[in-house]
Amino acid sequence: MNILYDERVDGALPKVDKQALLTELRRQLPDLDILHSAEDLKPYECDGLSAYRTTPMLVVLPRQIEQVETLLKLCNRLKVPVVARGAGTGLSGGALPLEQGILLVMARFNRIREIDPAGRCARVQPGVRNLAISQAAAPHDLYYAPDPSSQIACSIGGNVAENAGGVHCLKYGLTVHNLLAVEIVTIEGERMTLGSDALDSPGFDLLALFTGSEGMLGVVVEVTVKLLPKPQVAKVLLASFASVEAAGRAVGDIIAEGIIPGGLEMMDNLAIRAAEDFIHAGYPVDAEAILLCELDGVEADVHADCDRVRAVLERAGASEVRLARDEAERVRFWAGRKNAFPAVGRLSPDYYCMDGTIPRRELPGVLQRIGELSGEFDLRVANVFHAGDGNMHPLILFDANQPGELERAEELGGKILELCVAVGGSITGEHGVGREKINQMCSQFNSDELTLFHAVKAAFDPERLLNPGKNIPTLHRCAEFGAMHIHAGQLPFPELERF
Amino acid sequence: MNILYDERVDGALPKVDKQALLTELRRQLPDLDILHSAEDLKPYECDGLSAYRTTPMLVVLPRQIEQVETLLKLCNRLKVPVVARGAGTGLSGGALPLEQGILLVMARFNRIREIDPAGRCARVQPGVRNLAISQAAAPHDLYYAPDPSSQIACSIGGNVAENAGGVHCLKYGLTVHNLLAVEIVTIEGERMTLGSDALDSPGFDLLALFTGSEGMLGVVVEVTVKLLPKPQVAKVLLASFASVEAAGRAVGDIIAEGIIPGGLEMMDNLAIRAAEDFIHAGYPVDAEAILLCELDGVEADVHADCDRVRAVLERAGASEVRLARDEAERVRFWAGRKNAFPAVGRLSPDYYCMDGTIPRRELPGVLQRIGELSGEFDLRVANVFHAGDGNMHPLILFDANQPGELERAEELGGKILELCVAVGGSITGEHGVGREKINQMCSQFNSDELTLFHAVKAAFDPERLLNPGKNIPTLHRCAEFGAMHIHAGQLPFPELERF
Repeated sequence: MNILYDERVDGALPKVDKQALLTELRRQLPDLDILHSAEDLKPYECDGLSAYRTTPMLVVLPRQIEQVETLLKLCNRLKVPVVARGAGTGLSGGALPLEQGILLVMARFNRIREIDPAGRCARVQPGVRNLAISQAAAPHDLYYAPDPSSQIACSIGGNVAENAGGVHCLKYGLTVHNLLAVEIVTIEGERMTLGSDALDSPGFDLLALFTGSEGMLGVVVEVTVKLLPKPQVAKVLLASFASVEAAGRAVGDIIAEGIIPGGLEMMDNLAIRAAEDFIHAGYPVDAEAILLCELDGVEADVHADCDRVRAVLERAGASEVRLARDEAERVRFWAGRKNAFPAVGRLSPDYYCMDGTIPRRELPGVLQRIGELSGEFDLRVANVFHAGDGNMHPLILFDANQPGELERAEELGGKILELCVAVGGSITGEHGVGREKINQMCSQFNSDELTLFHAVKAAFDPERLLNPGKNIPTLHRCAEFGAMHIHAGQLPFPELERF
Repeated sequence: MNILYDERVDGALPKVDKQALLTELRRQLPDLDILHSAEDLKPYECDGLSAYRTTPMLVVLPRQIEQVETLLKLCNRLKVPVVARGAGTGLSGGALPLEQGILLVMARFNRIREIDPAGRCARVQPGVRNLAISQAAAPHDLYYAPDPSSQIACSIGGNVAENAGGVHCLKYGLTVHNLLAVEIVTIEGERMTLGSDALDSPGFDLLALFTGSEGMLGVVVEVTVKLLPKPQVAKVLLASFASVEAAGRAVGDIIAEGIIPGGLEMMDNLAIRAAEDFIHAGYPVDAEAILLCELDGVEADVHADCDRVRAVLERAGASEVRLARDEAERVRFWAGRKNAFPAVGRLSPDYYCMDGTIPRRELPGVLQRIGELSGEFDLRVANVFHAGDGNMHPLILFDANQPGELERAEELGGKILELCVAVGGSITGEHGVGREKINQMCSQFNSDELTLFHAVKAAFDPERLLNPGKNIPTLHRCAEFGAMHIHAGQLPFPELERF
């Protein structure tokens, strides 16, 4: 399946002469590692969203920033599209290659440049793994807060590109809230620093603009992240509920109590049973839903908050509330949650992971509607997600070998995302738009807004060579997709005739 | 003095026929309040930076968003520059009018649309005062965290434009960290929403880009802010030191302890004595410096942290550490700090308030160097600032009636800002660039970076009609200013010949 770049709606990319490009690359960058045989290219044909696969024309693996500068300058001159890739763990196809383009793999930029305990920051290369930063900071009792489930493998450069979240981002923020600066190389081969060590930077906030831009504005070559002191103590409560709606309401009640948990996660019965079978976390397999609520901070505070949260959960109708007895049980509770995706994956030949975000107060209603949609489409849906953020991850189970099931799963996924937008939410929380959700962007944004996105893109990359076909759809694509633009009650694309 | 727009370096603005513009405005917007007589225009000639004054051509005071849409569409068609203004409390001349432009006063958009306790947010018009949001949220035990000293008067629209900070932003973040969405009108008269109620928005982060853009990208017509639960308890410690350097070191020590105070402020002897004379806060007038450290949260936590901070302060050489006995004394301690600017103003006919930000670890060295510069320029400098953020506010005392003193004060201010940049900081923390610091932007950014800023600006406002001459200097201005670009060791404007 090669569905990356839908030429019918996005307009054809320029044709590139592979042999001429290879010759020019070798001439200008004799030390650059280049992969070009079908066999060598195969492992790079997809990222974590393996439903989408494209063999790249060439894969390059630079080691020095100067190589990236020269490469991008060359691509800009020859009009060769470039897709940058970190560890390839992304779940929305943001690093899906182009048949007519270069895949720029940043994996070899894997050095930690500096851990600065006094300044509470770390300066690292983009290929450094998320967890490796916390490991390097641990001797100073510091850590890097955003913790995507893939943190053992995913790289910080990819985290910046996707504005990655994680279990702890409810309290500690997304990637963008934990960055001080990024050094980038533009498509013109110019190196520049966005942000600074200081509190705030004058001029426009290009650091925030760049974070989550999915490789469309430049290539990250160095990242300075904030480090936080490790909390003295962390405790986890596990609460069982007789319905997903009741659990959803309890989430709002906890937040309304003025408590900000370190993590607040929800799993429904399908996810609970799958995780329990796989990890033996000690979950109550008869519960229709569980909440995992972590409280972290100083000892006295955490104890007091545990009591308050327990009271809230009981008032909200929890049939059982268990405090993890010790650190081993706490880790086990989280292991079940962090492995829930692969656990659900064992239930079905294929699954499709959604990533919608909704205002917290809408959780009970949206969970109920997802249950109804699951029935209507005759496909099982497991719910396991960052409840405190309203960041939902419905997993749609299907079998791609059954005719029509993939299409039905995709249609159901689309309905769920439109539901998220309709209640004031968004089509992505932390996985990004990538290739996967590009059509749903037409539901979320109107033509004025998309036009503005394209104008901002053009400020960085006027020839649209960086990761084309991802993140921001063309107006033409949206017209073809025929999405009803939902928010603000406007009609879709009233001004399309202008373009 | 009319020094807003330096035509020599920025290129002349288009000439506007005032009478023709007035006629057209009255035809298209018969209900719009317009001021045009010299007498009526006078009160609008400056914002909080009164050293810069320009009489606007016209002042308009719309009441409905539709009027703003029509007005901006008209200005775009007729190429009339527009400066938007909130309460006019800004300290960097960001709302300084144009002789050949319209001043768009948003003061009448002063309604609170919605307080949503469950969603922990408030939807307000841009002219609503910062403090009024917290007052409206108080019955729900919620508040809006960013608290500029001007919070009784400044408006939330202006806070968005300047990305305002305040005493509590060390712990709770700047304006940008406390926003969910803003509704804007573009120069083309199109209304759009940036951000959403949800955790994260797909596409580029235009909300963060817009926040702090100083009126150059669009006009804010509605703001949705986050509300936080009021802390159960707040305590303040006052510590006295025998030198500013020792107090500066203590700041780093507190943060290194893993404590994030609700506020951490520093004042030097000149500021202490001025505030004490004015407010009778009970400050130790013999101390060379004091630190005010507020700890807020739940009772047990705050008590434990007070003990830890006291120990750190004593180890750092504090000669005295006092805990505010009761709420009345706590309020008095803060009243001294919040009134320090007007208090220092009583010492001298004029003063010039700086707003540089530096990495915290540089505080002792920078404070010492400011003391030396004060001697060299023979001008008194009072230091009163957000120490925890490294956001300094040196106040340079001078007498504009003494020949040469204003120029000397400006030169000293420039030296202090260059010092901030040289140690890895920034020329503004929370007051913005505006008109005041536009030349120092040439020190902070190189020509590639400025070119990128201009390209982003053009994505929103290609004719550069929104607040021209502020925030982002032209390359031509920087060449004239002749600034040595300090960071990254590059020479200034190596590529200027390209432009």
